[in-house]
Amino acid sequence: MINGRRFWGWGRDSDDPFREGLPALKAMMASRLNVSTFTELPPPRLEDIDLPTPRWAPPRKLDKLFSQDPFERAAHTYGKAYRDVVRGLMGDFRVAPDAVALPGDEAELVRILDFCQERRFAVIPYGGGSSVVGGVEMRGLDPARFRGVVSMDLRRLDRVIEIDEISRAARIQAGIFGPALEEALRPRGLSLRHYPQSFEFSTLGGWLATRSGGHFATLHTHIDDFVEALRVITPKGALETRRLPASGAGPAPERLFLGSEGALGIITEAWMRLSARPRFRASAEVRFSDFLRGAEAARRLAQSGLYPQNCRLLDAGEALNSGAGDGSASLLLVAFESADHPLDALMSRALEICRDAGGEAPPGAGKTRETREGEREGAAGAWRRMFLHMPYLRDALITLGMVVETFETAISWDRFEAFYTEVLSATRGAAVEVCGQALITCRITHVYPDGAAPYFTVLAPCRSGSGVRQWDEIKAAASEAILRAGGTITHHHAVGRDHRPFYDRERPDLFASALTGAKRALDPRGIMNPGVLV
Amino acid sequence: MINGRRFWGWGRDSDDPFREGLPALKAMMASRLNVSTFTELPPPRLEDIDLPTPRWAPPRKLDKLFSQDPFERAAHTYGKAYRDVVRGLMGDFRVAPDAVALPGDEAELVRILDFCQERRFAVIPYGGGSSVVGGVEMRGLDPARFRGVVSMDLRRLDRVIEIDEISRAARIQAGIFGPALEEALRPRGLSLRHYPQSFEFSTLGGWLATRSGGHFATLHTHIDDFVEALRVITPKGALETRRLPASGAGPAPERLFLGSEGALGIITEAWMRLSARPRFRASAEVRFSDFLRGAEAARRLAQSGLYPQNCRLLDAGEALNSGAGDGSASLLLVAFESADHPLDALMSRALEICRDAGGEAPPGAGKTRETREGEREGAAGAWRRMFLHMPYLRDALITLGMVVETFETAISWDRFEAFYTEVLSATRGAAVEVCGQALITCRITHVYPDGAAPYFTVLAPCRSGSGVRQWDEIKAAASEAILRAGGTITHHHAVGRDHRPFYDRERPDLFASALTGAKRALDPRGIMNPGVLV
Repeated sequence: MINGRRFWGWGRDSDDPFREGLPALKAMMASRLNVSTFTELPPPRLEDIDLPTPRWAPPRKLDKLFSQDPFERAAHTYGKAYRDVVRGLMGDFRVAPDAVALPGDEAELVRILDFCQERRFAVIPYGGGSSVVGGVEMRGLDPARFRGVVSMDLRRLDRVIEIDEISRAARIQAGIFGPALEEALRPRGLSLRHYPQSFEFSTLGGWLATRSGGHFATLHTHIDDFVEALRVITPKGALETRRLPASGAGPAPERLFLGSEGALGIITEAWMRLSARPRFRASAEVRFSDFLRGAEAARRLAQSGLYPQNCRLLDAGEALNSGAGDGSASLLLVAFESADHPLDALMSRALEICRDAGGEAPPGAGKTRETREGEREGAAGAWRRMFLHMPYLRDALITLGMVVETFETAISWDRFEAFYTEVLSATRGAAVEVCGQALITCRITHVYPDGAAPYFTVLAPCRSGSGVRQWDEIKAAASEAILRAGGTITHHHAVGRDHRPFYDRERPDLFASALTGAKRALDPRGIMNPGVLV
Repeated sequence: MINGRRFWGWGRDSDDPFREGLPALKAMMASRLNVSTFTELPPPRLEDIDLPTPRWAPPRKLDKLFSQDPFERAAHTYGKAYRDVVRGLMGDFRVAPDAVALPGDEAELVRILDFCQERRFAVIPYGGGSSVVGGVEMRGLDPARFRGVVSMDLRRLDRVIEIDEISRAARIQAGIFGPALEEALRPRGLSLRHYPQSFEFSTLGGWLATRSGGHFATLHTHIDDFVEALRVITPKGALETRRLPASGAGPAPERLFLGSEGALGIITEAWMRLSARPRFRASAEVRFSDFLRGAEAARRLAQSGLYPQNCRLLDAGEALNSGAGDGSASLLLVAFESADHPLDALMSRALEICRDAGGEAPPGAGKTRETREGEREGAAGAWRRMFLHMPYLRDALITLGMVVETFETAISWDRFEAFYTEVLSATRGAAVEVCGQALITCRITHVYPDGAAPYFTVLAPCRSGSGVRQWDEIKAAASEAILRAGGTITHHHAVGRDHRPFYDRERPDLFASALTGAKRALDPRGIMNPGVLV
């Protein structure tokens, strides 16, 4: 058992805030989407599902490093995309791995990898399993090429090995989960300050392999920016980069592995840059009658050089859904934080910029507050709980037979308005055609001087038949529109197998050739997460 | 002729501030280093040097795209390292390229590249030729493998093609020089704000291929950070990345080419992120009795989240040499700039941090000044002129028979003191052994939350015999110490051929294999800058 987690979806039964709340959720859907009948998908029991028989048994000398326990195999079959949860709820575990490998240290990991290479088994690196892009699933594998599939779970490599308080950095094993990582750093007054929505059930290694997007809305938006050095085990051996604050010596080696999604090797450790835990905070909500006006304010803020730690724009629907607004206006959440200095000068200029762009903020908004360790003021704390509860909500909606999808991208400011309009309209068109009706909302999660990262949420009632097919159609229409209008197929959700056809069109062909060349050098038998990247 | 530039060293005769000042320089060396006799190396005349006969003549259909003019060939023989200038002064041009290619557009560049591939000629991409690491020199080429050598000069690809004022970005050809680039952006109120010491005679393409370090001492320290998209011509064809503010779709394609030093292809264009030209400036000089105390202040500033645009620490010798101090104390130059807001709150906290760390700044230092376009206040303007004149000074010292070297690196803060001591002592030891005496100074050019980039200058009188050999010995001792003590062989000067043996030790072997795989895919015949990178 992995910490009492569900094998078919997000989190733990015991933590699910919607467990008893389905009637309320039904009522909300009935009013927001005018849905009256729900094709419910109740969670399966482990004993009711069919798992394929493993094609092989671990040899005795490696016996302790593998599990073929049905729960483990079921729980490692999918990530956490809509299509994953639906298949889990329907008891479809046909692509379960033959075994889950559980190395306790790097030497064991190497032994497992050697064994898999020798036996021609595909290896899927597995952190928290929170991929929403089919990154950890053995889809469409050629059985003639691979005689078996191993899910390599890093969860036992979960230690903070060394903390350097002077440089504010730590050497950390890749299998550590978000909360344990922060727990280990807290006594030193330090923090990685990386809070993806999957924070509770995702790992440092997963964040690195997928270029996870995090806490900061400006400046250091991706986990990439906090990497000092990486250690990677490839089928050809170990590779470790030098711990450096910066270097200009050749192409940055870490960048080849950030975003490689397990296809070049397994990240086992990283030296990560940390921050002091913030002491001063200032936050404000600015109302805009119109989303595009809010986006214009976000652009000016992003170009101001103020670098607010938060600069998130919710459209009216997002504001309503998240409880931050009443649905009549867009909200720009602006926040600064610092371990070093009060934030009044920065916030006051930020609010001036927002007001100049047509935003409304109450007088006196955004005062600096000094916070004590552990304290989280009301609104921000509520938002954070809400933010981390979203995956539970998503799964609850799926059990009610709703089609739910979130997708995100990035685009330069000059094309923002046209892009937003086109993606919204294509997605709405597809969702209405497929599901009859849909609620589509948008927020901007990260902003840059030269562009923004919009994030869309689609909620639609599943028509009878396959929700997966309906989801696939909406997803394809949205992805097509993103590529056509000049965006990227993902700003921080990664590529996996779901985005692969679109990624292949976005990526220059010759860069694909270069990656293929690199992969051949590190993984000559092609056993690492086949189907991903190249 | 290329803009009246010297074929043997830096810049133009007409701009050389030391042209008439050699007696003063001699006097200074006599007093600082106690040198009385100078083994002068007077600049050669073009007609006095021997150039090898070109091994081939361009075919008629490509005739206009090549030059075999002696001046062009001589000027493209070397970069601008000490060892390059000495060899130039001594009239040693044995490794001159057979021809200089001068494509006027990308189609011409492709024709030249195809021709070189077919004829098995090595191709060295050439921007401003300011490499100080042997990046553009045909050293040690196997004549059996290559039948000729072409220096591909990008100087005719020198246009700003498109400016996007909304996203603050521009599409720019790689062959443009620093001053022309800023000239083209100024009417729109924009700037790339990238001012390496080579600014006058280096190009955007060169900056990108070598991961040039620039204006900003914190945050966006390298040109890498301003790249939105790249266009690269490889022997296998063209590759263009999508213009995006950010993406998480696979390993970042731009990062493979940033730092590739021409070994994977030729960067022909880039979309670059720009800034608005600053309107507010604030700067202050803080005195420290001791360099390491100054470094401690720099560390606290780097970790404060204030992100000063300048945060450069000069040791007492650097301060004296640059005219910023009297040689009795270290100086920390702290400056903020903004196009958006006054800087008093930031500067006042920065000075508080410096004073807490033992620094002295006059009361009232660092007030925000509003500057008009084109205006440059006294001290900063003088520093900038001085900064850009340094290469002329270096060459003037070489003609006086001095051994001059600058090298730079980066190291995390926890190891800073030990590193600094070890590198200084190893360099001093080698320089004294080789040259009898030496003046060695250090400054910190860039700071990070987790470390710093120290920059060393070595000045020693050349003993009779080969200055190049003496330089090589000092360089090797310094480089050894850097690697041994945990640093990087270069923070922003690149690798080229001079740093290659040390780079090979710093770089993980398996990353070298991956790069080799990538190179094979893009440059199967290995004609691109052979000897560099892999």
